[in-house]
Amino acid sequence: MASTSRAGQPADPADPATSLAGWSLPLSPDGRAALVPPPPWHFSGDAIGIDFRGDPAAMAAVLPRGLEAAGDGSASFVFCDWSSSADNDSRLADDPARGQYKEAYVAVHARLDGVSVARVPYIWVDSDLSLARGHLQGFPKKLGTVHITRAVSVGRGGPHVEAGATFAGHVSSLGRQLARASVTLRDPADPGFIPKAMRLPVWHTRLVPDLAGGEPLVRDLARNISTDFAVAQVWTGPGELEFYDSEFEELASLRPVEIVGAFRCSVAFTIVGAEVRPA
Amino acid sequence: MASTSRAGQPADPADPATSLAGWSLPLSPDGRAALVPPPPWHFSGDAIGIDFRGDPAAMAAVLPRGLEAAGDGSASFVFCDWSSSADNDSRLADDPARGQYKEAYVAVHARLDGVSVARVPYIWVDSDLSLARGHLQGFPKKLGTVHITRAVSVGRGGPHVEAGATFAGHVSSLGRQLARASVTLRDPADPGFIPKAMRLPVWHTRLVPDLAGGEPLVRDLARNISTDFAVAQVWTGPGELEFYDSEFEELASLRPVEIVGAFRCSVAFTIVGAEVRPA
Amino acid sequence: MASTSRAGQPADPADPATSLAGWSLPLSPDGRAALVPPPPWHFSGDAIGIDFRGDPAAMAAVLPRGLEAAGDGSASFVFCDWSSSADNDSRLADDPARGQYKEAYVAVHARLDGVSVARVPYIWVDSDLSLARGHLQGFPKKLGTVHITRAVSVGRGGPHVEAGATFAGHVSSLGRQLARASVTLRDPADPGFIPKAMRLPVWHTRLVPDLAGGEPLVRDLARNISTDFAVAQVWTGPGELEFYDSEFEELASLRPVEIVGAFRCSVAFTIVGAEVRPA
Amino acid sequence: MASTSRAGQPADPADPATSLAGWSLPLSPDGRAALVPPPPWHFSGDAIGIDFRGDPAAMAAVLPRGLEAAGDGSASFVFCDWSSSADNDSRLADDPARGQYKEAYVAVHARLDGVSVARVPYIWVDSDLSLARGHLQGFPKKLGTVHITRAVSVGRGGPHVEAGATFAGHVSSLGRQLARASVTLRDPADPGFIPKAMRLPVWHTRLVPDLAGGEPLVRDLARNISTDFAVAQVWTGPGELEFYDSEFEELASLRPVEIVGAFRCSVAFTIVGAEVRPA
Repeated sequence: MASTSRAGQPADPADPATSLAGWSLPLSPDGRAALVPPPPWHFSGDAIGIDFRGDPAAMAAVLPRGLEAAGDGSASFVFCDWSSSADNDSRLADDPARGQYKEAYVAVHARLDGVSVARVPYIWVDSDLSLARGHLQGFPKKLGTVHITRAVSVGRGGPHVEAGATFAGHVSSLGRQLARASVTLRDPADPGFIPKAMRLPVWHTRLVPDLAGGEPLVRDLARNISTDFAVAQVWTGPGELEFYDSEFEELASLRPVEIVGAFRCSVAFTIVGAEVRPA
Repeated sequence: MASTSRAGQPADPADPATSLAGWSLPLSPDGRAALVPPPPWHFSGDAIGIDFRGDPAAMAAVLPRGLEAAGDGSASFVFCDWSSSADNDSRLADDPARGQYKEAYVAVHARLDGVSVARVPYIWVDSDLSLARGHLQGFPKKLGTVHITRAVSVGRGGPHVEAGATFAGHVSSLGRQLARASVTLRDPADPGFIPKAMRLPVWHTRLVPDLAGGEPLVRDLARNISTDFAVAQVWTGPGELEFYDSEFEELASLRPVEIVGAFRCSVAFTIVGAEVRPA
Repeated sequence: MASTSRAGQPADPADPATSLAGWSLPLSPDGRAALVPPPPWHFSGDAIGIDFRGDPAAMAAVLPRGLEAAGDGSASFVFCDWSSSADNDSRLADDPARGQYKEAYVAVHARLDGVSVARVPYIWVDSDLSLARGHLQGFPKKLGTVHITRAVSVGRGGPHVEAGATFAGHVSSLGRQLARASVTLRDPADPGFIPKAMRLPVWHTRLVPDLAGGEPLVRDLARNISTDFAVAQVWTGPGELEFYDSEFEELASLRPVEIVGAFRCSVAFTIVGAEVRPA
Repeated sequence: MASTSRAGQPADPADPATSLAGWSLPLSPDGRAALVPPPPWHFSGDAIGIDFRGDPAAMAAVLPRGLEAAGDGSASFVFCDWSSSADNDSRLADDPARGQYKEAYVAVHARLDGVSVARVPYIWVDSDLSLARGHLQGFPKKLGTVHITRAVSVGRGGPHVEAGATFAGHVSSLGRQLARASVTLRDPADPGFIPKAMRLPVWHTRLVPDLAGGEPLVRDLARNISTDFAVAQVWTGPGELEFYDSEFEELASLRPVEIVGAFRCSVAFTIVGAEVRPA
């Protein structure tokens, strides 16, 4: 039922119909104006995450048809400070204003074809590249202001990665605080441990409405195909998480009723394509 | 050859397949999280614009197949301070953080089927709503920081709308200045005069690449169908315009070789749908 | 008791001791780097304001010694979209990124020497020029993100200045919403009417702590000496106002218990110097 | 001649004259609104720096009377990603939006009383706390947008701290790019090596103009008294540096004519007070 395909795009192919180049908008004569380069895309980040349980009915209500609710209201909230690069666009790695961004999202645990998966109903980032790249994947990104505690390697200006250190994150959008979290490191995780929020495949809805009316131009389910997944410096410990109301969001209905655990880790992977299914 | 259609979308229709609602991403149970509401969308703005000529070959090079170059290198650069609202989402009008935004763009004059039209190859805005709403139309929007002189109605803190007053705009993105312009008001325009940059229909390329590989999911030509166009307080006068290099842009190839004229005006219209043609 | 003086600073005087010039930091060879030019400073803005009453004890608690509480808990909250210029620095008027800014503040009504005055205990702006210029006056400015509804002159993208139109403002700082207000225009004010929040002299504390220890380098009371005050397009009508908690602020203790009235107006004045008294 | 003093301020002392508390503005009943807490302040950061030579006359021209030019036009440009905390305000460490900030500055090498020192004529930061705290020290801070490449610890999204890795920084203000730099790591520095830009004492001018006219309220020379200085992970290698024109700055006159070297390091120190001399 699923049509699987790995991306095999040439880098910035010239438009077959004209001289305009660009994998995404904007098209331009040399293809240098395009916002999103073609994959592969590489990601390295420092994340803090809170595993929690909310109202099971509210969690089920954010799942599209085809995904089955986990049933126990389990979900994770993640803040991540990302660096990204692209094989076909060296400017992402060369310029910190282009490749780096901060992100906050909630991942609701679910099942698809009997396999544990996740759904990210809500996510905020602080970069247009990340927003547009996300929409192409089905990540429903909006702009937000995200702050995440950085680890320091010397001195007392901030926390070191060590037992007892606390790392916090918060996200706001349109002037409203949306979520706030912290984790206090207790122990390095066992070797091989990967936080659930980092390893569940995430199924998105790709949706492109048609301004000309009628059915959407695109509406399907998609998940990224990724390689080279790695985590490092995984610590776990107690955490805190709060959601806040905003008239522009429905995150608050997923608010935590129980904190299951929390972690901080470094994480990396490469996105090479997507698997797609009918919505 | 063109398939024309007016949008007749219900407001935030529930997903026919699930309980999720939203004209655009993010989908949510109540449809309140969606970034872009369905049209009609209303726009009111204060614009400054510079009509100029650049290198005709460079202007022709940013046109997609199907659009014929004007031949004389004519184009306009516009800064606009927008307020927007939507019939189906009162939050745009109610909250200045949601409906208001600033925009800068270049419109290259062209011809399609013998009619004068325009193409906007490059455009920057400071709002995620505007960016995502633009991508759905084919506007190739990126985030930028846009500053535009506001008119004042009392005192000496800024210019009044009167002869001799200068209004300026500039746009930067990723820390680079991209364009800078100013107009000095000389005369109110004759009744009925509409700046060319405000009245040419703009033909966009809607482009949605497929992360799963192969051909784009969407690739066509589109122009907005709009109603209730109006201008007010149109003044003309001498102007200045400069473009600057950025490794992320190709705007500089369109740089002005001759300033034709400049204007300041208030402008309004309503977007109700789109006309679409094959790319 | 008060030592009154009008500023008679030459424009960007050269440092008498060296070749460095600048009325404020940064000093530089040509004086072009200075953040704040010397007065006179001109201001023109569009303001919305809410007159309200809070807890009288809380209002009294934000007054410095020397100011007597109004006793009835009366105060005003104002959002203003400012354009500013300076006789000695044409760059403020020439560049919208430099002279324009948005501001939100609370003004607590009080008495000094038997005269009605105001105190602004808390204020947020979105510009470094405004922040530094404010600190020199004693305005205790912090950075915030301020959004204010703009009036439009044509179309339906935003409100016109007319009966029934609603104008809103909100301010956030460090990701927390701090205050939100709106006014719905009912009637143009009578000729000569000036909102109280616009006409009370504001007494500030100028405070410069000494990093070397001991008493502050500067600690006195000051109010601006201004000329050319004007208001225009004053409308009144019902208003709404809410304050929110933040661990970085004490604004919430001044929260409204009664809304007295609301207004929208354009306002202008020129600051030429200061009157100073011992703290 | 110098009056030296270590700060021994109590934490957030209550105003002796009233009930208002706060080491800096804003004063408030509980002292929680103050922008700047009293020292000691702790700083930990990741810095990239370029040692360069410019026009000796231009370098001499940014020094105040009392500082002697190094004569060879030597200076350093530094980008730093800071985390800061304060003994008397736990909120700086607890909240990443409050304690963390990014900074870019030029340090001109000079001599005072026969000792090698530095002068920072121009500096930009992206936080109001850092700006206000800097002004109290004499750092002539303005707001800027600063981007600095972060090191990653896993994956290919960004550079690791290793030979061949390139780290870049750039700063813009008011929409203009001001400076851009990069360093490509070649070797870890010898143990005990401290980049000159990190170890020279910096002499500032504290300057507070008086809006009431006449002489400035404060004008002296000051340097921070700091303890617990440490560097870590110091790497050196070839670097690049460019300055750009802006009508709001005079940085361009200090533009590099020769790159001497470049480094990347982590750095930390604690500021406890200031040493002050007459200007």
